[in-house]
Amino acid sequence: MKEIKILSPATVANVSCGFDVLGFCLESIGDEMVIRKTNKKGIHITKIEGYDLPYEAEKNVAGVSALAMLNDAKPDFGFEIEIYKKIKPGSGIGSSSASAAGSVWAMNELLGRPYNKTEITAFAMKGEALASGCEHADNIAPAIFGGFTLVKSIAPLKVLEIPTPVELYATIIHPEIEIKTSEARAVLPTEIQLSKAITQWANVGSLIHAMHSNDYDLIKASLHDAIVEPHRSKLIPHFNAVKNESIKAGALGAGISGSGPSIFTLSKGKENASVVAEAMKKVYSKTNINYNLYISKINTQGIKII
Amino acid sequence: MKEIKILSPATVANVSCGFDVLGFCLESIGDEMVIRKTNKKGIHITKIEGYDLPYEAEKNVAGVSALAMLNDAKPDFGFEIEIYKKIKPGSGIGSSSASAAGSVWAMNELLGRPYNKTEITAFAMKGEALASGCEHADNIAPAIFGGFTLVKSIAPLKVLEIPTPVELYATIIHPEIEIKTSEARAVLPTEIQLSKAITQWANVGSLIHAMHSNDYDLIKASLHDAIVEPHRSKLIPHFNAVKNESIKAGALGAGISGSGPSIFTLSKGKENASVVAEAMKKVYSKTNINYNLYISKINTQGIKII
Repeated sequence: MKEIKILSPATVANVSCGFDVLGFCLESIGDEMVIRKTNKKGIHITKIEGYDLPYEAEKNVAGVSALAMLNDAKPDFGFEIEIYKKIKPGSGIGSSSASAAGSVWAMNELLGRPYNKTEITAFAMKGEALASGCEHADNIAPAIFGGFTLVKSIAPLKVLEIPTPVELYATIIHPEIEIKTSEARAVLPTEIQLSKAITQWANVGSLIHAMHSNDYDLIKASLHDAIVEPHRSKLIPHFNAVKNESIKAGALGAGISGSGPSIFTLSKGKENASVVAEAMKKVYSKTNINYNLYISKINTQGIKII
Repeated sequence: MKEIKILSPATVANVSCGFDVLGFCLESIGDEMVIRKTNKKGIHITKIEGYDLPYEAEKNVAGVSALAMLNDAKPDFGFEIEIYKKIKPGSGIGSSSASAAGSVWAMNELLGRPYNKTEITAFAMKGEALASGCEHADNIAPAIFGGFTLVKSIAPLKVLEIPTPVELYATIIHPEIEIKTSEARAVLPTEIQLSKAITQWANVGSLIHAMHSNDYDLIKASLHDAIVEPHRSKLIPHFNAVKNESIKAGALGAGISGSGPSIFTLSKGKENASVVAEAMKKVYSKTNINYNLYISKINTQGIKII
């Protein structure tokens, strides 16, 4: 195998109560990438379509993660990377993670699979760090493992694969506004009330139990964020309207995808996800903000060869 | 059925990462209680053995919970309660909860089971509130439901039954010192670092996943408390030594039972629980503090008729 083409999916991090630890993988949106073995050593990004991103490997998230794996594997050849970017950078659905994870997942295939998923995640986190300033895995892990993941710890890196009820669908609306990562961070408190933290970990435990038990009512009861959403939602115009209308339309829950501005909802069944999509759309179509809308089954496979 | 005799078990609340929400039920220690229908209306405590506790129903936790159920059920008869107290009040293994839960569980049986376990828990919480000043259910729920429980929320009351791996054993050491509840509360911060809270909810999610997956290694990796233990452990002499020695002896984890002073450990298998017991004992036998030691399978039944 000399080259492969892959689809590296968008992902939703945090999932209301699971700030910094939970995430899930989407099916209907992702970046395409071609990774090719070359006699020329090193990592060379030879094509980028869709968005304007740097070609120097050291300045590109896909390049940085690729270099990390290359420096570890030390093959007597190199790799070329082509990026067909479909996920808009800064949309809050794991755009940088898709790039960072895609290159190393594909390289691992071309190298004969020397690394397991946790090791691939660790390389991808190096690329993610270029984009966000610190190594985290809440988007990387669901892209690589698929389904719902819980990043139990970063050091040592431990990713848990949480079972996904089969009828679970996500609806995502991406309002085309920009939230600077620095701004999304600045609104977060460094200290929180113990009482709210207790509510949060009760919800995290409850959500994990609900996923194992296929209990959609309990998923609904658990999808609350007492800590981050009250602060960050202020940065997203019409967040509360979208949330309220989608829950009225039958969504199990709604929250900020990653650090926003995308808003995710979860629903039981595709039909309900479509009804919810209409409700979300209705809110933004009354404004002058452009938006993109996605309905997706939870992608239990993660990155795949296409 | 005119009267029943029950065993109302001791319980461990918090379980390291699950402060205020997690708890589990013990098998080998509990209060015995006799509850009897009487023509005389009202709740009458007619016998208390073991510890010196008030006979007035309004001042006794078992009486307060019983009155709450009686006022709701409004039967044309009353109940007598005999309490054979085996769990030392203030030991940190759910002494007041055993009393508060026992009376109403037994009354429900004698009334022909009009209430479900969640409703019984709600009545018992009224009794618990007399002892602790506020309604909580982290000891009540495991006494009534058995096994491991997660109190997802208090209002509305929602208790989740978490599956218990069959080889899980608890070892408990109760050093005979007094920690005032007010003191155990006073050492708790009202605000905590967001970063530590994230670690805590990752561990809660991970522990629930581990219980569902029968993954003892993951149980071990999840039994950490970044929030409460660093403060409260200072109130328990030799806590760190007991914790370190029991983990060296093979325990999956060790922590404060409830608000202490009892220390619990969890182990895989009865044999290991015994080895851990020896290690815990060794620490306190070098001091002048008296102690009690218990080894117990996780009691998946909860309160039972004997």
